[in-house]
Amino acid sequence: MSFVTHLESALDGTRLPARTLQTLHEGRPLWVRYDLDAVAGAVDRDALVQREPTLWRYRELLPVDDDEAITSLGEGLSPLLPAPRLGAALGVPRLLIKDESQLPTGSFKARGMALAVSMARQLGVERVAVPTAGNAGGALAAYAARAGMDCVVLMPEDTPLVNKLEAVLFGARAFLVDGLIHDCGAVVREGVERCGWFDMSTLKEPYRIEGKKTMGLELAEQLGWRLPDAILYPTGGGTGLIGMSKAFEELGAIGWLEGRTRPRFYSCQSSGCSPIATAFEAGERFAAPAPDPATVASGLRVPVAVGDFMILDAVRASGGRAMSADESRLLATMGHAARLEGISICPETAACLLVLEQLVAEGELDAEQQVVVFNTGAAQKYVECLEVELPRLSRASPDWDLLAG
Amino acid sequence: MSFVTHLESALDGTRLPARTLQTLHEGRPLWVRYDLDAVAGAVDRDALVQREPTLWRYRELLPVDDDEAITSLGEGLSPLLPAPRLGAALGVPRLLIKDESQLPTGSFKARGMALAVSMARQLGVERVAVPTAGNAGGALAAYAARAGMDCVVLMPEDTPLVNKLEAVLFGARAFLVDGLIHDCGAVVREGVERCGWFDMSTLKEPYRIEGKKTMGLELAEQLGWRLPDAILYPTGGGTGLIGMSKAFEELGAIGWLEGRTRPRFYSCQSSGCSPIATAFEAGERFAAPAPDPATVASGLRVPVAVGDFMILDAVRASGGRAMSADESRLLATMGHAARLEGISICPETAACLLVLEQLVAEGELDAEQQVVVFNTGAAQKYVECLEVELPRLSRASPDWDLLAG
Repeated sequence: MSFVTHLESALDGTRLPARTLQTLHEGRPLWVRYDLDAVAGAVDRDALVQREPTLWRYRELLPVDDDEAITSLGEGLSPLLPAPRLGAALGVPRLLIKDESQLPTGSFKARGMALAVSMARQLGVERVAVPTAGNAGGALAAYAARAGMDCVVLMPEDTPLVNKLEAVLFGARAFLVDGLIHDCGAVVREGVERCGWFDMSTLKEPYRIEGKKTMGLELAEQLGWRLPDAILYPTGGGTGLIGMSKAFEELGAIGWLEGRTRPRFYSCQSSGCSPIATAFEAGERFAAPAPDPATVASGLRVPVAVGDFMILDAVRASGGRAMSADESRLLATMGHAARLEGISICPETAACLLVLEQLVAEGELDAEQQVVVFNTGAAQKYVECLEVELPRLSRASPDWDLLAG
Repeated sequence: MSFVTHLESALDGTRLPARTLQTLHEGRPLWVRYDLDAVAGAVDRDALVQREPTLWRYRELLPVDDDEAITSLGEGLSPLLPAPRLGAALGVPRLLIKDESQLPTGSFKARGMALAVSMARQLGVERVAVPTAGNAGGALAAYAARAGMDCVVLMPEDTPLVNKLEAVLFGARAFLVDGLIHDCGAVVREGVERCGWFDMSTLKEPYRIEGKKTMGLELAEQLGWRLPDAILYPTGGGTGLIGMSKAFEELGAIGWLEGRTRPRFYSCQSSGCSPIATAFEAGERFAAPAPDPATVASGLRVPVAVGDFMILDAVRASGGRAMSADESRLLATMGHAARLEGISICPETAACLLVLEQLVAEGELDAEQQVVVFNTGAAQKYVECLEVELPRLSRASPDWDLLAG
């Protein structure tokens, strides 16, 4: 049995029982709550190093009761890479990049889906469905296949090719909808009633947060349980930022953290779709839908986030900000970073790097500070975004002036 | 300093000094040799669990002397995943898949390039070049970027889009050649003379083998230092199979292996390009060039392998075989496996699964045996191979008969 005690409405604190299928409470997401004193008593922090190098090493801070329900593709413990050249160029030489592109299906979405599918399996779910703007559909398709579940993926027509491909590869029943992700979400809601689907949308079941939380747990462990000064995180649905914030709270409560530093969270969006940044600037707790969302960073094309208040609460409590990057500079920034560090930077992460540039210019971040940027997915998944027109050579008489460079 | 004592010709045993730039000796590859007694004295096998979850945990069995030269993107310790449904379907329920799709740049090529670039850096190389049929170019481009080296990548015109894309993304100078990988290799050889490139081709420098060797080291550690009965490995240039064979020899010599089982190696190719399988059948030690190589498994499109005799020696010494799979069945097999297990199976690995089917049919493998298949890259990198024609839905009036499935 896990250490979960109950679920709790993120908006009003209403308590709901765990170990039964839950979705939203009065339209708002649920937190998973644990007996943290018991966790503290059960686990020796310094013995974690001996455990398997996946997110399941934090088993006592995860909600799965039944080992047989665990649905794993080996996810987690993504590398925390120094980025000295990029950091120097940006004025933050201590820059670290947590590289989520090396997870199953090439994105951070694997974490949330690993937990959500494991819990759905434990609770007897057989048919799952999800709306997706990008990587979530491929990740759910993979984990549903691993669990032997029926899976439906609903995508906007202009979803990136590779995301469509992986939904098909893993045997999901995938469909294109003439709308945006929230239109896909509306079809999923109707499918819950009509077809008995379980809705795996961001924050509409309680466990994707718990999977994303492991980004924070890993970051803490990788930094010797001392948290960094700032975390820049690309925000679509926002589960990762919410999950990390929860991770640091829980780690604080069980006494595993060294030092008093708690990171400022910078929620990063694109000027093409920045509802959270707009609400932050306006001092609002809830975000208005973004008009005409358009960005090459498909994971940021989320005009309506059901957890808007959770993201904004976490950002404000941390002393950070929600900001927006210039859409027209995303692709150039992505290429620049990849060339400097050899890391497969996605366009969503390019938004973070542009926000970072702005924060340094404003004097809010500097060379003394330890800054962590999350690279949420692999650039290789964005085949539509990059020009690949290569010079051609004859094998019989190659152009040596060209080759010599 | 590392435990390397010298380099040694794989064909005739000639000794050459380490710690100086070496390529081939009389046209044939070199082994890296270690003082294995000293390694055995220096490392406690059972303390490895405390080390970082990358291939650098095996530092004493790797050739890098200078820590500053280590060029890492967090590679290694890929998951060893049970594949119970696929295994049951094939008649080998103990089937395990070592999933190399989760490495940097989404393929096993990261291992070899991490070591080769680190050693090139240690030895003062500034310009590297490679011919590639697929994933090697992207991997070299990433590690060269990480090391700040100039990188030239030469590819056949029909190289997969994603491989072209990643060479460009990571800032390599990439070119298309009107020929196959060995034609690209000829241009690289000329560039060594004309432009001072260092040739990073498979087996033409000594250290890519050492990187690939870590697949064998990890497999042994992940299985509690007891080796499996059989390993099926897709063979293009063959470095992985050669490297694993070397790993098991070295682990035996330092006394880390439990039990006496040594795996039979099955080298798997496609009927579209199977020079090693053909040479094996004919009882030859050297392989004739494959005529008209054509396969969707781009990594297997290697008609001439400079390490042919090393592959064939390793396969024969192990009691295994070199075999070829039906090209026309690769894509269907890849999809079938991905749907059953949620693992991102590449077409090269599909060749292994077809060979496995054949070995079970012949009675050579059965339900008692522990079989390991290597998944050498992510299916998502093969966007040209998969049909992605999805049904379209109207958000206003979705077709519920279709959705209900």
